[in-house]
Amino acid sequence: MAQGFTVWLTGLPASGKSAIATHLEESLLERGLDVERLDEGEIRTEWLPTLGFDKGEGDGATRLVGHVCHLLSRNGVIAVAATVSPSQEIRNELRSLIGRFVEVFVNRPVEDCEKLDETGNYERARKGELKGFTGVDAAYEAPVNPEIVLETDKEEVEQCTNKVLRTLELLDWIPKVAGSDYNEEEEAKITKRLKDLGYI
Amino acid sequence: MAQGFTVWLTGLPASGKSAIATHLEESLLERGLDVERLDEGEIRTEWLPTLGFDKGEGDGATRLVGHVCHLLSRNGVIAVAATVSPSQEIRNELRSLIGRFVEVFVNRPVEDCEKLDETGNYERARKGELKGFTGVDAAYEAPVNPEIVLETDKEEVEQCTNKVLRTLELLDWIPKVAGSDYNEEEEAKITKRLKDLGYI
Repeated sequence: MAQGFTVWLTGLPASGKSAIATHLEESLLERGLDVERLDEGEIRTEWLPTLGFDKGEGDGATRLVGHVCHLLSRNGVIAVAATVSPSQEIRNELRSLIGRFVEVFVNRPVEDCEKLDETGNYERARKGELKGFTGVDAAYEAPVNPEIVLETDKEEVEQCTNKVLRTLELLDWIPKVAGSDYNEEEEAKITKRLKDLGYI
Repeated sequence: MAQGFTVWLTGLPASGKSAIATHLEESLLERGLDVERLDEGEIRTEWLPTLGFDKGEGDGATRLVGHVCHLLSRNGVIAVAATVSPSQEIRNELRSLIGRFVEVFVNRPVEDCEKLDETGNYERARKGELKGFTGVDAAYEAPVNPEIVLETDKEEVEQCTNKVLRTLELLDWIPKVAGSDYNEEEEAKITKRLKDLGYI
């Protein structure tokens, strides 16, 4: 069995996590790998429409996604999670649980997120219809030491996805693809980051 | 990759689902198979402590367990679910989604379940502290046409587990084990049941 792992995309609502997760899933599938995408938004809609956004329910959503990633990862599947997951403590807890875990901070200024939001959730939160909504009346704890930072206000989805793929290749968690088109400067940055973290 | 499937244990709270699921998981692991157990009680405690028991949240719990079983099953894992899942409609929906799905009705009279309950939930529901609790103020829809019925007030956990294992063997979903100790009469009943359902 191949060794599974989890790519954990965390960031404010509407920061661009889902788009990157979808593109990353497609890229990994194209490489013939077993992958499942866990999107908090889809899970809330399709599995648990009653789940709210306050602290307790938000933490529950994070743990739920994390535990499912754990079950998949330990059965050889690559789990790609897209979840706000605002709590550093819970992200750390899930990292310990899962082991092979790459934390990806999807970083976009909250004003941009709010402008780009298509769910109407920021607006509902501003009106007080949603309580404890991250980015409006609850804090997002930016990752202290993530493996990857993606600036989605400056980088395209394709470029973000490639950074993640290249990181996974350098970690030797996925096979290297010959002739991939990576930017040299970025490549050096990723390598330095992984060295700093003691991975390579 | 081995072909995964889902064993779905449904029944009233405290009907004995968890004990059978645990024993079944151990038996399948002993046979060297990849298996994960999804227990609604554990999920409620460890993943989503805020999740309530009323209709909407109960249905959410059922769907959540079902979708996770789906992700595991389609990645070659045997998923063993223990969940009240009182709605026939949702069980049917999950059966369609998952495909390879064995519905196991864990049948024990509600009076016995209430007596045997160690969680205190029946008592809390009787006092009105839990709303929409299946078996007290919400109906359990017994499976219309389950693959297996286990009478946990009459049969031991070991015997129940063996019935499930034998059914899976006869379906050719797990390898047959030579010299397994099955009761002839039960064996005939299981075979007849699978023939009636058109499986064999």
